[in-house]
Amino acid sequence: MDHFFNVKTLDQVLENLSRFECMGTEIVSVIDSTSRILAQDITASLDLPGFRRATMDGYAVVAKSTFGATESNPSWLEIAGEVKMGQTPTFSLKPGFAAGISTGGMLPVGADSVVMIEHTETIDENSVEIYKSVAPLQHVIDASEDFAKGEVVLQKGLELRPPEAGLAAALGYSKIKVYKRPQVGIISTGDEIIDISQIPGPGQIRDINSYTMAGFVKEAKCIPRLYGIIKDDLAALLTTCEKAFKECDMVMISGGSSVGIRDFTIDVLSKIEESEILAHGISISPGKPTIFAKSGNKPLWGLPGQVVSAMVVFKIVVLPFLNKLKGQSNVFENKLKIPARLSRNVASTQGRQDFVRIRLTKQADGLSAEPVLGKSGLIKTMVQADGLLEIGENVEGIEKDSIVNIIPL
Amino acid sequence: MDHFFNVKTLDQVLENLSRFECMGTEIVSVIDSTSRILAQDITASLDLPGFRRATMDGYAVVAKSTFGATESNPSWLEIAGEVKMGQTPTFSLKPGFAAGISTGGMLPVGADSVVMIEHTETIDENSVEIYKSVAPLQHVIDASEDFAKGEVVLQKGLELRPPEAGLAAALGYSKIKVYKRPQVGIISTGDEIIDISQIPGPGQIRDINSYTMAGFVKEAKCIPRLYGIIKDDLAALLTTCEKAFKECDMVMISGGSSVGIRDFTIDVLSKIEESEILAHGISISPGKPTIFAKSGNKPLWGLPGQVVSAMVVFKIVVLPFLNKLKGQSNVFENKLKIPARLSRNVASTQGRQDFVRIRLTKQADGLSAEPVLGKSGLIKTMVQADGLLEIGENVEGIEKDSIVNIIPL
Repeated sequence: MDHFFNVKTLDQVLENLSRFECMGTEIVSVIDSTSRILAQDITASLDLPGFRRATMDGYAVVAKSTFGATESNPSWLEIAGEVKMGQTPTFSLKPGFAAGISTGGMLPVGADSVVMIEHTETIDENSVEIYKSVAPLQHVIDASEDFAKGEVVLQKGLELRPPEAGLAAALGYSKIKVYKRPQVGIISTGDEIIDISQIPGPGQIRDINSYTMAGFVKEAKCIPRLYGIIKDDLAALLTTCEKAFKECDMVMISGGSSVGIRDFTIDVLSKIEESEILAHGISISPGKPTIFAKSGNKPLWGLPGQVVSAMVVFKIVVLPFLNKLKGQSNVFENKLKIPARLSRNVASTQGRQDFVRIRLTKQADGLSAEPVLGKSGLIKTMVQADGLLEIGENVEGIEKDSIVNIIPL
Repeated sequence: MDHFFNVKTLDQVLENLSRFECMGTEIVSVIDSTSRILAQDITASLDLPGFRRATMDGYAVVAKSTFGATESNPSWLEIAGEVKMGQTPTFSLKPGFAAGISTGGMLPVGADSVVMIEHTETIDENSVEIYKSVAPLQHVIDASEDFAKGEVVLQKGLELRPPEAGLAAALGYSKIKVYKRPQVGIISTGDEIIDISQIPGPGQIRDINSYTMAGFVKEAKCIPRLYGIIKDDLAALLTTCEKAFKECDMVMISGGSSVGIRDFTIDVLSKIEESEILAHGISISPGKPTIFAKSGNKPLWGLPGQVVSAMVVFKIVVLPFLNKLKGQSNVFENKLKIPARLSRNVASTQGRQDFVRIRLTKQADGLSAEPVLGKSGLIKTMVQADGLLEIGENVEGIEKDSIVNIIPL
């Protein structure tokens, strides 16, 4: 007596990623670009830094003038001038000459290296002694050493971190084309669910999923839109779902934990204009009672009502689709998995993929991955967890002391 | 000829953490609470879930009525009623009786367990056969099993992730007291630095640090305020720094790469009302030319002009102070370090702490940590990096194939 008629494996569900396109684009200021996804290649419009630049304070020289210089046998150089920051030196440098320069200064024509000020002694305003030889290009960055004009420096689909935003700024991209952030409609269902402002009576429980799902959507740099709590009523759920579908790029109906409302969810998702049910049940634990549908370019989800199951399904199943909409080039690799040593044997059931909640603790020899025990209806098991351990469907379990890769929460 | 007169080790700098207090508090809606730091303990005002709750669809029973039940020898139970979601059952249950129940439903008084619907066969509207025994409390969550009334469930100083926000919601905390987000004033200095909207002439370079620093401040969930680019002029820098000091909770003057402007930075920070210079140079690489001062509860920084140095100093030195202001209970553990195998020998200089840029790549046996070679003036070395490897001041280097812990960028 299984309620699920179209149970898919996780891999089968994820095969549908190719059937979704990424969002349209918009232009944002570089200052607002961090954590957005590039919708254009960033090309170097000029060499960076664009001129031969000192990386130390000291004297710009022709390297060969310093060859053989030591503390006891310094090279004596004539001072040709002083480089002013942000300006082209008005003089060039020949062997036997030196010019005072600060970090970031432009080397005079002819100079190929910088002697650190620590290795010099200024004799008078016209001469300096050098105590250590330098090689050509030592303590300088050459004109196109960071990036050369015409080079694609950042590729479409990349998430912009602060260093990438800084690089775009350096290349003069004050405005950047990024993908729009998907809006995600969130609906909670169930006669037993009440608003958090209410006092639960017997058999009632406050809405949790709206808040955990909104939090995860925000963490994914997308925009949550809450549509409230809908009681177990087909017409009401359909009306709200249609509204969310029109206004958002993805819809998640969370809850529907009773048999009745779960039937409503599949009915409602089936009734959305041109929708197609792609999975009615996924062979993962927790999270089996998940419904996945598609209408146009919008993924539609019926998530389990169990609070832990809803969170696991979001992280494992929903997030790759949200990343696809966001324009991320690698929808799975938004976070690195963390290697850790398993603290105890973990059993698993064949024929389904298990996601075990894990607490990470520091040990002398690295991180320990400790399974968080407890029923998947208990939110405390997620509050105690730092990540999830995936156990494949053909694996019976994982032995204590195995090195496992933890998906961070 | 060292320009630094008060060089401190990183540990000496970090000892000053205890001299700063966290920010004041504010009240936010639970929906806006994710990634904020709790400024109150969250206490369970009631038991959670608050009633004995089914975790499966099926029949609520008295467990002993099912003892010995098998496919070939089922228990026959009389149906006492059906539990409605969100309501107290109007009947109680005695041995020999069962009640239909959905996941999340409230068990009738007397019932102690749930038989999954898959292990039952409804005979008629009055009777059901049970094919598998259940133990007391099987497939139920007891009234205070998640959290018990009066328990402190989340502690002051904790960063709220989505599960914690969900838990607060479950306990009826629609408003939560969190610490205010520090505002961070960012000033770029240097005659060679131009606005990103301008075309750099010879010797000039566009402002990068304002954008990388603003990005990192936002990543830390704080508020960046940009004060623009100040030329090498003591009076102008002082005026802007005083303004930023008045308006913000922390100030970072980035740049000042020339000897002259570096002197301005220390002069300016010394002139800020009641300021105290805590370090003029830190024995880390990159990042030695860092100035650290304090006025009242506000940290003031003179960061290196080199783009990579500024980013490393932010991550390693500045961030713990920002986390302290933010109210985070563990200022260092905002991110887990990632274990990886070093791909080559890395040399280091004794007497300073080195922070080597690392690219992480997936290998069959885990993650490989590959040092990113290249001068610390090259922003591309940060764009290519996923993290930093710390090499202690008394370590000469780390050997290839050592397992190292990478600080994520």
